Amino acid sequence: MLRIGMLTSGGDCQALNATMRGVVKGLSANVQELEVYGFYDGYKGLIYGNYRMLSAKDFSGILTKGGTILGTSRQPFKLMRTPDEHGLDKVEAMKQNYYKLRLDCLVILGGNGTQKTANLLREEGLNIIHLPKTIDNDIYGTDMTFGFQSAVDIATDAIDRIHTTAASHNRVFLVEVMGHKVGWLTLHAGIAGGADIILLPEIPYDIDKIIEAIHKRAASGHGFTILAVAEGAISKEDAALPKKELKEKIKKRKHPSVSYELAEQIFQKTGIEVRITVPGHTQRGGSPCPYDRVLSTRLGAEAATLIMKKEYGYMVGIINGKVKKVPLGDVAGKLKMVSPDDQLIKEAKCIGISFGV
Amino acid sequence: MLRIGMLTSGGDCQALNATMRGVVKGLSANVQELEVYGFYDGYKGLIYGNYRMLSAKDFSGILTKGGTILGTSRQPFKLMRTPDEHGLDKVEAMKQNYYKLRLDCLVILGGNGTQKTANLLREEGLNIIHLPKTIDNDIYGTDMTFGFQSAVDIATDAIDRIHTTAASHNRVFLVEVMGHKVGWLTLHAGIAGGADIILLPEIPYDIDKIIEAIHKRAASGHGFTILAVAEGAISKEDAALPKKELKEKIKKRKHPSVSYELAEQIFQKTGIEVRITVPGHTQRGGSPCPYDRVLSTRLGAEAATLIMKKEYGYMVGIINGKVKKVPLGDVAGKLKMVSPDDQLIKEAKCIGISFGV
Amino acid sequence: MLRIGMLTSGGDCQALNATMRGVVKGLSANVQELEVYGFYDGYKGLIYGNYRMLSAKDFSGILTKGGTILGTSRQPFKLMRTPDEHGLDKVEAMKQNYYKLRLDCLVILGGNGTQKTANLLREEGLNIIHLPKTIDNDIYGTDMTFGFQSAVDIATDAIDRIHTTAASHNRVFLVEVMGHKVGWLTLHAGIAGGADIILLPEIPYDIDKIIEAIHKRAASGHGFTILAVAEGAISKEDAALPKKELKEKIKKRKHPSVSYELAEQIFQKTGIEVRITVPGHTQRGGSPCPYDRVLSTRLGAEAATLIMKKEYGYMVGIINGKVKKVPLGDVAGKLKMVSPDDQLIKEAKCIGISFGV
Amino acid sequence: MLRIGMLTSGGDCQALNATMRGVVKGLSANVQELEVYGFYDGYKGLIYGNYRMLSAKDFSGILTKGGTILGTSRQPFKLMRTPDEHGLDKVEAMKQNYYKLRLDCLVILGGNGTQKTANLLREEGLNIIHLPKTIDNDIYGTDMTFGFQSAVDIATDAIDRIHTTAASHNRVFLVEVMGHKVGWLTLHAGIAGGADIILLPEIPYDIDKIIEAIHKRAASGHGFTILAVAEGAISKEDAALPKKELKEKIKKRKHPSVSYELAEQIFQKTGIEVRITVPGHTQRGGSPCPYDRVLSTRLGAEAATLIMKKEYGYMVGIINGKVKKVPLGDVAGKLKMVSPDDQLIKEAKCIGISFGV
Repeated sequence: MLRIGMLTSGGDCQALNATMRGVVKGLSANVQELEVYGFYDGYKGLIYGNYRMLSAKDFSGILTKGGTILGTSRQPFKLMRTPDEHGLDKVEAMKQNYYKLRLDCLVILGGNGTQKTANLLREEGLNIIHLPKTIDNDIYGTDMTFGFQSAVDIATDAIDRIHTTAASHNRVFLVEVMGHKVGWLTLHAGIAGGADIILLPEIPYDIDKIIEAIHKRAASGHGFTILAVAEGAISKEDAALPKKELKEKIKKRKHPSVSYELAEQIFQKTGIEVRITVPGHTQRGGSPCPYDRVLSTRLGAEAATLIMKKEYGYMVGIINGKVKKVPLGDVAGKLKMVSPDDQLIKEAKCIGISFGV
Repeated sequence: MLRIGMLTSGGDCQALNATMRGVVKGLSANVQELEVYGFYDGYKGLIYGNYRMLSAKDFSGILTKGGTILGTSRQPFKLMRTPDEHGLDKVEAMKQNYYKLRLDCLVILGGNGTQKTANLLREEGLNIIHLPKTIDNDIYGTDMTFGFQSAVDIATDAIDRIHTTAASHNRVFLVEVMGHKVGWLTLHAGIAGGADIILLPEIPYDIDKIIEAIHKRAASGHGFTILAVAEGAISKEDAALPKKELKEKIKKRKHPSVSYELAEQIFQKTGIEVRITVPGHTQRGGSPCPYDRVLSTRLGAEAATLIMKKEYGYMVGIINGKVKKVPLGDVAGKLKMVSPDDQLIKEAKCIGISFGV
Repeated sequence: MLRIGMLTSGGDCQALNATMRGVVKGLSANVQELEVYGFYDGYKGLIYGNYRMLSAKDFSGILTKGGTILGTSRQPFKLMRTPDEHGLDKVEAMKQNYYKLRLDCLVILGGNGTQKTANLLREEGLNIIHLPKTIDNDIYGTDMTFGFQSAVDIATDAIDRIHTTAASHNRVFLVEVMGHKVGWLTLHAGIAGGADIILLPEIPYDIDKIIEAIHKRAASGHGFTILAVAEGAISKEDAALPKKELKEKIKKRKHPSVSYELAEQIFQKTGIEVRITVPGHTQRGGSPCPYDRVLSTRLGAEAATLIMKKEYGYMVGIINGKVKKVPLGDVAGKLKMVSPDDQLIKEAKCIGISFGV
Repeated sequence: MLRIGMLTSGGDCQALNATMRGVVKGLSANVQELEVYGFYDGYKGLIYGNYRMLSAKDFSGILTKGGTILGTSRQPFKLMRTPDEHGLDKVEAMKQNYYKLRLDCLVILGGNGTQKTANLLREEGLNIIHLPKTIDNDIYGTDMTFGFQSAVDIATDAIDRIHTTAASHNRVFLVEVMGHKVGWLTLHAGIAGGADIILLPEIPYDIDKIIEAIHKRAASGHGFTILAVAEGAISKEDAALPKKELKEKIKKRKHPSVSYELAEQIFQKTGIEVRITVPGHTQRGGSPCPYDRVLSTRLGAEAATLIMKKEYGYMVGIINGKVKKVPLGDVAGKLKMVSPDDQLIKEAKCIGISFGV
């Protein structure tokens, strides 16, 4: 008898269901006696013992289904060690529920924050497999996370649509793409959507260079300019501020995001109006793209294989096209950011894309 | 020899190119000698004589192309009679360019504002055909405008994506749909997307009824609620204000739109956080949907037929499934709004959708 | 207490689930005590008493879901009066199951064949509401059936994709669109996809006219031609044959469909190779388009309203934009075909589309 | 002054235009004086001197455009050394046109056949850069070709749509995916679409194992089964035949493809009807997916960089996520096939997918 638990934690994204299906199909096809417990709403379900036994039927037809059949929630890592409002020790509660169900392994799907808690539980002695989910593709130790390519597709679609409007009206348009700390999504969607200027959190921008790029494009006969801007894009001035001061400044910002501030600055310096579009949460929603479905099926199958071999304590990632196990302890808490020297940045610059520097 | 001019005016939308293609294909297939002049950027091109002679090649492959190959601009009807900054009488300038090119007819694609100017030019003696474009479907005298169904598709797609996220997180989500004065787009996308609450400019809402609907939905076991809210949705209180006072109030609004205000109110009254998504200009962009392509081809073909019969001064619309000519003078300046007694509203209410009243 | 039965019959299509959801949401929101019985696999479930009681949960999240949660099957009307292999009188069996469950009404979703049986059951004294489903839009008494616009979208997408290939290779391409007896789907998808030649069952073609159209297009400088051909397209010669003889001829056809025969003929007469694409069953599959979701929600809501008013024996259709009840007896067995004089045909001809005549 | 020629050859696919745009944008942004000559219809244009000088405008807005603005044709490598019907030495003709235009480099986009000729021209002393295009992803020396992921998306969409129909009717469906010699496309689309059985040219199938898999699936309570079958799928018996004999057999086949034969066999052995869907050429058509747009932009930019460094004689590929130059002579004529031991095959088997062996 094999007993596994499963939970999805953090912001939802595409292919969570596809990945869980991969794990369970992999186990069902190879293990005689299997029990799968699904915890609701992320770690919350594990903490408070809120779960359901899942059958094969639960995993039928969910390959293409967006969101997560288990629900999810954001449970900040920082507070995991802090007792809840009733004094409950959350880590102990999770361990107790794990042992009460006599689980052989707990499969955890989530991003960076989730991974840290997963690693914490591993250190506490639980058998853990982590599967790297996030539209940000910022998880260290894997070339690709599921959700990322689906989000690229949606953000690119938004830029595509804006293109026809921008070209018809000869306007400057800014599309704000998700990503507070990391710019992979904006970088890929920006290139795929044919953006002229791409602003990333990792490459603080110089407002004058942005304006220069807008003028240059107009001078070359193009009536419109498209900016793809990450939520976490930041000016050189702000990037130079002490962290605390920056936080204060952002708090006091009168605009909902950097995009509005940037648009105002451009207007003040040039008289050019910048229209803003924010696809927002749509970037996390809907059916996973075929790329993500293949990736998540692969990661799920490999997770099943590890579980059957009783190899625990790993994240399953993909490196150079091969699915691999990566020790959780080696990667937890690390962020994979865009390097300004990344080959992709150079290629984008080569074809004339400005990064505002 | 037949000489026609063509221009697209107002906010761009899908199927402008498809419609122009319909007109020109209709004429080309039936008229021996044809000259088509395209004016750039809406009425601006007609005023300042900025145009190009178009060939069959210009209309090849544009059936599926978003935006407008002629460019467009918003030229407020109110200012048409006011001379420009150099003292130019704009109406006279348009007439002169029309006569200089010895046009037999001017085909004008646009929405309500555009239509008013088109009618003005008709009153001034020009031969005009107007084709009803707008994602708002608010043009009087036609059951349907091209652009509308394409925009419904995009707004619905946004709601669909939000659904998976809302369900995974058990949250309340608000999707702001285009439409300042008229709610057809929000109504259709809201029903198509399975929204629980739909707020339209024509049906001022009662905040308490909205909250009631959210609570009712939670009580029936659903963890999430989706609101589809038109840009021009308005509270009962605001709707009761004198127009001037309301304008002032909106100007002073600290939020970019009613959605943010509404979300704040809901939060203050219930503690429930409402996430907002604004698909914005994406709703006007990209390739027209097949429905719009058929509609615009039909309207274009009928416009060509009218021109060949020298029947001018009409808008071409579709009424009860039949394409028909409608005297411009009968419809210009009138708005087609959602009636609270519309059958569609009743049907939506029947299946449990709340309109906040 | 209100007890209704529900079944879906005939070839599946989009928006079956959306329509059932409409009916049940409409009833649930207005009826205190409601029981809904879903019969599996069309009339089969009713004949053999294969059903399940459905709860609100069954209808949650199915607005966007393709296919039918009840399953379907084709049960030829002709054989309904013939006992099954065990001597069971099928009509009597259906009646017995209806009465055993003390149903107030049976809601039947299906196309023409389904409708005939629905009417038969009505004549037998059962309370029936019929909802018009079919990608063919060939049901008499309604302007539109749900499934149609979704199928148009898919067939158009196929033509769109073929366009880029045809243009790159300067080839003649034929896309075979579903529709054995009726050409609405081909007509709409053909126009929306920018096909140059459209062949319908209702307008028998002259092979020489088709070749003429191909040559004419080449002469006008276009390297490629696209044909949209209904499955049931037929040559003038074949259309003139006695029905029996034609049936024999079709049986002996060495090709899987008329498209291959036509392609061969064109090749033999001109040396031009014609590539064939058959999107086939994909045209019935996947999520319903927003247009269909609104339509099916409306029809469903109206069905609910009729049931609550105890008005039975109707099909719910849409006529001139209004949802209406139509006496089943008036429409059952009638087919809505494309008239060669339809306005849409004239408009298509106006822009230069050839119908091979 | 830099003079480059460009041509696209072989079957068209998505992202040909995107790739050419990448090359030209990369050169335009960095080279003062640039002339780009586009040869029409593949090598034909180079042989017969059919070309046009291209401007920046030609490459504007084509990132998302399917097909190729230059046209393409299949010019078999085998016949390149054979004079044409007028006795023209084709290789010499290509060289002459290359030298006449004083080209610095010829950029060739195409698949395996195209690559062989590209290498031939390199051996003849021309400066060549090859860019790997094909929906088959079968080019040796690169992990990925552009066009592949777009084709996966389309084939997967077909399988998705068939899924809803198959599930509603409890049927066995077969989707025939492009790929005569190589199965990558079928493998990826099959996994992404949730196919139960995947048949590839590289893994000859045993009909009895296929039937076993269908029965097993039915036994596990699933009413339907989906097969994803490559055009070049082959039975064990046929694979064992001498090549010549096999060719003869295929010629005599009464069915248009292996799928029909297979369906007949399954029917004869089990009485189960298998419905066939062939998305065909749609798999090569339409706008490239964002993944392909990023890939082709990268390859194009790298090609531009090589040209500027006067490094010729390379294919530009992507290996382990890095864009790299690969000596044409090392890879031309080699095919990258699916190994039965590929990790992806193992993962697919792990989750219960049958390969008919």
